[in-house]
Amino acid sequence: MSHAAISDVLAGKYPLKETLTIKGWVRTVRSNPNFAFINLHDGSCFDPIQVIADSNLANYAEIAKLTTSCSLAITGTLVESAGKGQSFEIQATEVEIIGLVEDPDTYPMAPKRHSVEYLREHAHLRPRTNLIGAVTRVRNCLAQAIHRYFHENGFQWIATPIITASDCEGAGEMFRVSTLDAVNPPMKDNGEVDYSEDFFGKEAFLTVSGQLNVETYCCALSKVYTFGPTFRAENSNTSRHLAEFWMVEPEIAFADLATVASCAEDMLKYVFKAVLAERMDDLEFFDLRVQKGVVERLKTLTESEFVRMDYTDAIDILLKSGQKFEFPVEWGIDLSSEHERYLAEKHVGGPVILQNYPKDIKAFYMRLNDDGKTVAAMDVLAPGIGEIIGGSQREDRLDILDARMHEVDLNPEDYYWYRDLRRYGSVPHGGFGLGFERLVAYVTGVQNVRDVIPFPRAPKTASF
Amino acid sequence: MSHAAISDVLAGKYPLKETLTIKGWVRTVRSNPNFAFINLHDGSCFDPIQVIADSNLANYAEIAKLTTSCSLAITGTLVESAGKGQSFEIQATEVEIIGLVEDPDTYPMAPKRHSVEYLREHAHLRPRTNLIGAVTRVRNCLAQAIHRYFHENGFQWIATPIITASDCEGAGEMFRVSTLDAVNPPMKDNGEVDYSEDFFGKEAFLTVSGQLNVETYCCALSKVYTFGPTFRAENSNTSRHLAEFWMVEPEIAFADLATVASCAEDMLKYVFKAVLAERMDDLEFFDLRVQKGVVERLKTLTESEFVRMDYTDAIDILLKSGQKFEFPVEWGIDLSSEHERYLAEKHVGGPVILQNYPKDIKAFYMRLNDDGKTVAAMDVLAPGIGEIIGGSQREDRLDILDARMHEVDLNPEDYYWYRDLRRYGSVPHGGFGLGFERLVAYVTGVQNVRDVIPFPRAPKTASF
Repeated sequence: MSHAAISDVLAGKYPLKETLTIKGWVRTVRSNPNFAFINLHDGSCFDPIQVIADSNLANYAEIAKLTTSCSLAITGTLVESAGKGQSFEIQATEVEIIGLVEDPDTYPMAPKRHSVEYLREHAHLRPRTNLIGAVTRVRNCLAQAIHRYFHENGFQWIATPIITASDCEGAGEMFRVSTLDAVNPPMKDNGEVDYSEDFFGKEAFLTVSGQLNVETYCCALSKVYTFGPTFRAENSNTSRHLAEFWMVEPEIAFADLATVASCAEDMLKYVFKAVLAERMDDLEFFDLRVQKGVVERLKTLTESEFVRMDYTDAIDILLKSGQKFEFPVEWGIDLSSEHERYLAEKHVGGPVILQNYPKDIKAFYMRLNDDGKTVAAMDVLAPGIGEIIGGSQREDRLDILDARMHEVDLNPEDYYWYRDLRRYGSVPHGGFGLGFERLVAYVTGVQNVRDVIPFPRAPKTASF
Repeated sequence: MSHAAISDVLAGKYPLKETLTIKGWVRTVRSNPNFAFINLHDGSCFDPIQVIADSNLANYAEIAKLTTSCSLAITGTLVESAGKGQSFEIQATEVEIIGLVEDPDTYPMAPKRHSVEYLREHAHLRPRTNLIGAVTRVRNCLAQAIHRYFHENGFQWIATPIITASDCEGAGEMFRVSTLDAVNPPMKDNGEVDYSEDFFGKEAFLTVSGQLNVETYCCALSKVYTFGPTFRAENSNTSRHLAEFWMVEPEIAFADLATVASCAEDMLKYVFKAVLAERMDDLEFFDLRVQKGVVERLKTLTESEFVRMDYTDAIDILLKSGQKFEFPVEWGIDLSSEHERYLAEKHVGGPVILQNYPKDIKAFYMRLNDDGKTVAAMDVLAPGIGEIIGGSQREDRLDILDARMHEVDLNPEDYYWYRDLRRYGSVPHGGFGLGFERLVAYVTGVQNVRDVIPFPRAPKTASF
C-alpha cells in the first residue's frame, strides 16, 4: 500500500477520518502508561506530524521505548488536533517498527542543539536535523525556480564542460585532472611532464566558469544558461568560499548591459517569490533560529526597484559619506564588502546595481565603453551581503578584444574559438554569474556556505 | 526596443499587420533586383522565418550580398505568408546589419551538409547547424522535464559532490584531482606520493556516481535525486561512452524494487510526453534526417505498459528462442545488447523491465533476495537501444551488507558513513541511474553520444 507524504497530510489534502499510512523517522516520543505521542518526520516539509498511539496497541511496550530516528510505518485515522500548532494528527491503529537506532545513547544526531562544525563532521547524518533539512528544501526550491525562470523565458540549459584543457585565465587556481602515474609520470626531454600521454592527450583542469563556452551557444541560440559545478583551487578558508560550488550563468544575445541587469533583477525577484510562496515553513525556522529578519528581507527585495548606479558615482558617494572605511576609497579601486554594504544598506537602503567599472579591475572579455576607461560590467549588491551577482556585456568587436588580450598578456591564438564568435556574425551579448551557494546562504541567513551544500569541499576537506 | 522571439512569431502570438523587430542570424538569402528573401534564425525554434526585403530599402545593395550567419536586426510588418510551409513572414521596413561574416568562402559552417566528425572539430560553431540546434533544444526540454517530474512528485534535488576522496569501487577508472607539483610531488619514505600535502589532504578523484552520497539524504528526506556530471576514465572510444557525462539518480525511501521500477516507467513516460508536446518541430527533423521512426517510437513508449520480467525467465526465453547469439546464453551471464534487444524488440515488442539479477554480476549494495542467489536489481530495456536505466533496491540490513562487502573485498571501515544509514533507523530504499546523454541520443536518434553534449570529453579529446 502506498503511503501519504506528511506535507500533504498537514496541508489538508486528505479528508478527516480517512485512514492513512505515513512513513518516516521519529523526532521525539513522549509516553505514559496510556498513550505515546510520536512526532514523525519524513522530510517532505519542516514539521513532523503528531501521532497518538494508544496503549492497547499490541506492540505498545516497544513503541514506548522508541528513540529519535527510529523508522516507522504508521497507519491510523486522520483527526483534528487537540493541541495547539497543527490542525491535524493521526490516531494510530498500527505502528510498524521498521528500523531501530543502534545504541541511542551514542547516536550522533541525538535531539539536542549541535554546532555547525559538529554537523559538518557528520555530513551523512546532518540532513536529519531541522537546520540541514530546511536548507535542503530551500536549496531545491531555489534550483527549481531558477530552471523554471529560464525555461519560461526561452533560455536553453547548456551543460558546459567540467573538464577543460583550455589555457584559461586563472590557471593557477585550477585543479589538474589526470590519470598519469603520480610517482613516475612520463617525462619530456626538457624535464616537463609529457601530458601527451595523459588521458586527454594534454594537461587538463576542472573548469572555473562555463562562460566562455556558453557564449558559443549564445551566439547560435540567443538565450542560454549554465547551471553546473565550478571549481577554485584557492586556499581560502572563509565562510564564503568553497573549492567546489554551483554556478548559474545566463548569456543573452542582442543584449546590452541594461538588458543583462534587468534579467538579473527579474531572476532574483522570481526566485525570491518562489521561495516565499513555497517554503514559508522553512523560512520561518530560519527567521526564528538562524537570522532574524530573513523573511522580511526577501519580501522587501521582491518589491524593491534595484537602483542603477555608475561606479564613478558610487566612488563620489563613498568619498562624501564621511564614513571611515578600512580600505581607502579612490577611483580605480575594487570595492570591498564594506563599501558595497554601505552603498546598499546605508546610502540606498535597498538593492543596487553598480555599473561601468574601471577596465583595469575587470576581465578582458568585458566590453570597453566609449570613454576608453571603463567597461560595461555590473554587480548586483544586496543589503546584508554585498555582491551577489556579477556580470557584463561582452566585447563583441574583434580588434578591441584582441587589444585587451594583448594588454593582459593573453595569447589570442589560445582563444581562437572565442575569437571566431566575433569573426562570424558577431552580436552584442552579455550575461552574469550567480554563485548558487551564496544565494542559498543569503536566502536562509546561514553564515557559512559549507552548510548550504550537502558535502562541502574546501582545503583539507573532502570527506564522504 | 525589445525584440520578438521567432518561435513566438511563428506560433501566431502576434497579430497580423503588427510591426515587429526580430534579431538573429541569416540562414540563407536569395535576391533578385527587386527583392531579397532572407531566412532569419534565432535558435528559439527549429525554423527560421522568411523576411522579404524590398529593393527600395536604403541599404538594399548590402542586403543582397548577405551570407549565412550574418547577424541582423529586422523591423517590419507581420504578414500572411504567400509561400507554402509557414503561415507568417515579415515584410521588412528596416534591415540593420549587425555583424558580417569574415571571408564567407572559408566560413566553417557554410550552408552544406557537414559530417558529424567535422562538426565535432568545430564544436564552438556547430550549435549554428540544424542538427546541433535541434539536439540542444531537445536536450533542454528533457532536462527541464526531468526536474519538473521530480519536483511535482516531491523529490528534492541534491548536489552530490563532484570531487570525492572516498575509497570507492571502480577507483581504477577514476580521474585524479590534484594541485601537487606534477614533476616533483612531495613523497613519503615508502616511495608513494604524500597526498597529505595535496589540496584536500588526501588523494581525491572525480565521482563516478552520486548514489552512495544521495542515499544519506534519502534516509532523511525520503525522496531525493541527483542530476549532475559524473566521470569515467575508461579508455572507451565507442559511440555510447563519454569520459564526462550527466547522470540522473533518484533515490526513494520506504520503497521496494516494484516502486523503483514504477518510478522509472513514470519518469520516462513523463519526459517523452514533454518532448512530444514541446519539441515536435525538432523531432520531425530527426525523424526525417537522422533516424526514421523516432517520433513513432516515442509515442508508442508513452502508451506502452512496461513488461516486468525476471532475469531467470529472460534466460529461459533466450535459450528457447532458437536465435543465434554472438555471446552464448546461460544463467549467470551479464546480458549483452543483442540479448536485451531481442527481449525488448522481438519477444515483447516493447519496453521491458528485467528484474532480480544474479548477485555476482551486480554491485555489493543491491539487496539480496530470499533465494540467496539474486539481488533486487532492475534494468529498463527499450526497443532500439537496450538498457536505458539501471537500478535496484539497496541492501538495508547491516549484517548482509557487511557480508557482501567482504565477499567483494571492500573494507567496511571505508564505508562507515554508508553503514551508519543501516545502523540508525534503516529503511528499505532504492533508486536508479539514467545516463542523460544516452536518453538524449535515444530520443533524437543521434547515433553518437558525442553529438548530444556540447563539448564531448573522451580519450584524447578535451578541446574547447
